[in-house]
Amino acid sequence: MEPTYGYKVNSDMEEALRKLDAFFNPQAVAVVGATKKIDKAGFVIFKNFSTSKLRGVFKGELYPVNPNEDSILGFKCYKALSEVPGAVDLIVIIVPATVVPSVMEEAVGKKVKACVIISAGFKEVGNVELEEQVVAIAKKGGIRVLGPNCLGVYYSKTGVDTLFLPETKTLTTGDEVVATPRPMPGNIAMITQSGAFGSAALDFLTGRQMGVSKFVSFGNKCDVDESDILHYLLYDKETHVTLMYLEDVKNGRKFLEIAKKVTLKKPVVVIKTGRSSAGARAAASHTGAIAGSDKIYDAAFKQGGVIRARDMDEFFGMGKALAMQPPATGRNIGILTDAGGPGVMTVDECEFLDLTVNKFSDDILKKFQELKDQNLILKISATSNPVDLTGSVTDDQFVTSADLMFQDQEIDGIILLGLHHMPGLREKYIDGIVKISSKYLKPIVMCDIGETEMALYTRSRFDRLCVPSYSSPEGAARAMKALVTWGEYLERNGAADERIAFIKKYCLIKP
Amino acid sequence: MEPTYGYKVNSDMEEALRKLDAFFNPQAVAVVGATKKIDKAGFVIFKNFSTSKLRGVFKGELYPVNPNEDSILGFKCYKALSEVPGAVDLIVIIVPATVVPSVMEEAVGKKVKACVIISAGFKEVGNVELEEQVVAIAKKGGIRVLGPNCLGVYYSKTGVDTLFLPETKTLTTGDEVVATPRPMPGNIAMITQSGAFGSAALDFLTGRQMGVSKFVSFGNKCDVDESDILHYLLYDKETHVTLMYLEDVKNGRKFLEIAKKVTLKKPVVVIKTGRSSAGARAAASHTGAIAGSDKIYDAAFKQGGVIRARDMDEFFGMGKALAMQPPATGRNIGILTDAGGPGVMTVDECEFLDLTVNKFSDDILKKFQELKDQNLILKISATSNPVDLTGSVTDDQFVTSADLMFQDQEIDGIILLGLHHMPGLREKYIDGIVKISSKYLKPIVMCDIGETEMALYTRSRFDRLCVPSYSSPEGAARAMKALVTWGEYLERNGAADERIAFIKKYCLIKP
Repeated sequence: MEPTYGYKVNSDMEEALRKLDAFFNPQAVAVVGATKKIDKAGFVIFKNFSTSKLRGVFKGELYPVNPNEDSILGFKCYKALSEVPGAVDLIVIIVPATVVPSVMEEAVGKKVKACVIISAGFKEVGNVELEEQVVAIAKKGGIRVLGPNCLGVYYSKTGVDTLFLPETKTLTTGDEVVATPRPMPGNIAMITQSGAFGSAALDFLTGRQMGVSKFVSFGNKCDVDESDILHYLLYDKETHVTLMYLEDVKNGRKFLEIAKKVTLKKPVVVIKTGRSSAGARAAASHTGAIAGSDKIYDAAFKQGGVIRARDMDEFFGMGKALAMQPPATGRNIGILTDAGGPGVMTVDECEFLDLTVNKFSDDILKKFQELKDQNLILKISATSNPVDLTGSVTDDQFVTSADLMFQDQEIDGIILLGLHHMPGLREKYIDGIVKISSKYLKPIVMCDIGETEMALYTRSRFDRLCVPSYSSPEGAARAMKALVTWGEYLERNGAADERIAFIKKYCLIKP
Repeated sequence: MEPTYGYKVNSDMEEALRKLDAFFNPQAVAVVGATKKIDKAGFVIFKNFSTSKLRGVFKGELYPVNPNEDSILGFKCYKALSEVPGAVDLIVIIVPATVVPSVMEEAVGKKVKACVIISAGFKEVGNVELEEQVVAIAKKGGIRVLGPNCLGVYYSKTGVDTLFLPETKTLTTGDEVVATPRPMPGNIAMITQSGAFGSAALDFLTGRQMGVSKFVSFGNKCDVDESDILHYLLYDKETHVTLMYLEDVKNGRKFLEIAKKVTLKKPVVVIKTGRSSAGARAAASHTGAIAGSDKIYDAAFKQGGVIRARDMDEFFGMGKALAMQPPATGRNIGILTDAGGPGVMTVDECEFLDLTVNKFSDDILKKFQELKDQNLILKISATSNPVDLTGSVTDDQFVTSADLMFQDQEIDGIILLGLHHMPGLREKYIDGIVKISSKYLKPIVMCDIGETEMALYTRSRFDRLCVPSYSSPEGAARAMKALVTWGEYLERNGAADERIAFIKKYCLIKP
């Protein structure tokens, strides 16, 4: 296992990471509790693997295990895990909770490396001892356990898919529709304590065309927890940013130690629920999470360089920005718009978020005056920040103005409001803006408002060219805030070099 | 003109309202500055009217006015407004600013009632005297003026459409795409100081299938302002809720007086920008707005019963809830979910918004226990609020549980989280929930997370049946907050009867 960049791992750490690697790159998988019954989780999961294997995506060995079947979907079925011939490094368990310990004993005998326990009925419903029994057996055999009570792993590249939620669903009308899609490959890792939020996230990320490197739902986290996965992802070349849903952190010291290490290299965004007292009560009855004081979490995330999202939209919006754009080196934002009102909304939100939208210095104002004198932008344009090119904007005016703002040292990041409704604006400016932005180490995010064809086209095109787009001015401002927060964290921790390495590795798009 | 319900108008007031009516129901329209040149505002606006007239939607007389043309799009063209035969009650002016006063003088001669000045180049660029001149002429002739520097009016029913932004746009690829669509007819009025935000709103509302009763962009508001329009909308039967974008309010006393009157009958949601000091500076350079202290605005809105949205998504989300659901009589919310994590997110947001999610009383808990005993819901369901039916939810369990929550007096509103990813959930529960909700005077909003087929289907179906849907837990909670805020305002002002009248008039959907 090679580190992504820079980091050296010692041999103990390497051993630990190698174990976790079996969750994502298994050589042989046994699905214990595989079945032919179409409505069962054991069917959906086995079918995920078998389809993947037949298509040549999953390249390892695949063994269904079920005492009552001879074959499933054309694969020879084994009565017990112990009867499977050859080595097995990953097992997926979908049998009643009480049967899990005996399966685990067999797994120890087979020298299994990693195990995903999908089954529920453990600590979350009060069966603490049963869960402890499983952990003890796993420890004895050196097996890493994900779950129980989880969705497990999705990794498109190797075809590992332990999600029991089928991709499509048949409505009562007879129509088959997309229900829990799997996102395209990409650079965002999504890890989650809540399986329901995890499946919703897959749906959201797919629809918004945000690609995913690894998906992990860890449920009760009896063994592998958020810290272990974060640590693994630090060395995962495909992961560029991690999105994390948490209801609690059991081992705060471990979390902080690992988070500090990870966030100097790759940004992490968290949504931590159970913020309120009623929310904490709800979380306790959900996953048995002991939420603890929210202020302590807030402080810990800050110390660990983990960016906390305020709500779901901000969570995904920040993730998108961090996956596409370099961090900012300061908090003074330049706003470029063709729409006065939405420009003001952006300024309001920036200031609310403690970003500044300072009036430009005389130097920039002079340069904008020169653009006016050369008729490159209209005389009526406002140019003191925001730059408002007005409803008479053209593609060229946008590109020329953006170039000036990228060059200027006093602007740390740019929010572009390209409302497509203006009659003179076509789609040509998109490539122009992207081309210019790729020349600078300065972040840019954009907003276009609307939910019909041209708005969807504009946003989607910017996204594909790695300028993250947002459907509201406030969404764009919040995304920029994430780039500022991470940038300032890196500077504070003397990690400016890492910042440059990160940018060079990930962020410079050459259109 | 008949009032919507309840209110009596005196004859002065009736005269004033009748004048404003000419903006929406004109008998004869002259477009001054109509042209054949395809890229000009005067072409787009005249074409809006002529198409509408040829299709039989606009039933009045239509006159293009332009000294250089004999006919435009088959309509005889007049050299001057004064040459138009017969009466004209509405004129739309799209000529250079300096020419506007002479057009206005002709309008006085023609006894025009209402005038939309699209032209820019007045107060917003410092030409204060020119604008004052226009106002003086209008006053002399008793003409009500909308604008200048505005988009004007869109009213689908009579075909009035003074928007110079074409519905479609041709990309450089040659593809024609929807750019500034006009929404379908509905019960939401959208009024705005910013034209750019207005056009974006039309795009948003169309895409989200939110119907619009009247659209008014009032720009510099040299005469007709937000208060006049709000007052008119009180008596507009088609308008059920008003969404309002403001950068300032010039006449605070008038606004407060009218707002107080309106909000006892119909809810009003405002997004007021220029909140921050940098935002106020930007607003000043945009529309010359003097934003004033944001705290004063906050207090005034509260006093006037106007609900203030925090950002764009909340603005539209609140509007949708108020357009579809009755106000709540208290602030204790019941949450019904099939997804634990998103349930906790909802609780967090409710508590953040100062709503309560109290643990249920023994009485409800007992009733839920009975449902468990009868196997109507699963034993593993959490039932102390949130009610979490878990991933094993079925359509019937959702409907049965919702019925119990609607019946209970201690719950003032219901947030339903119907995440469609759960394998046993089909779309059947949607109609079941709607049917039950229509039996009670208690609001419900729903959330499903995801951006692919089944999520879009689920949300759209709920919306069409007037249970407003949201794509995030926080969005649903914020929408419920608006229903609580308005309900409490009505109670505080002894307007419970109005509340019932409102509900009976608008909110009871019989599926």
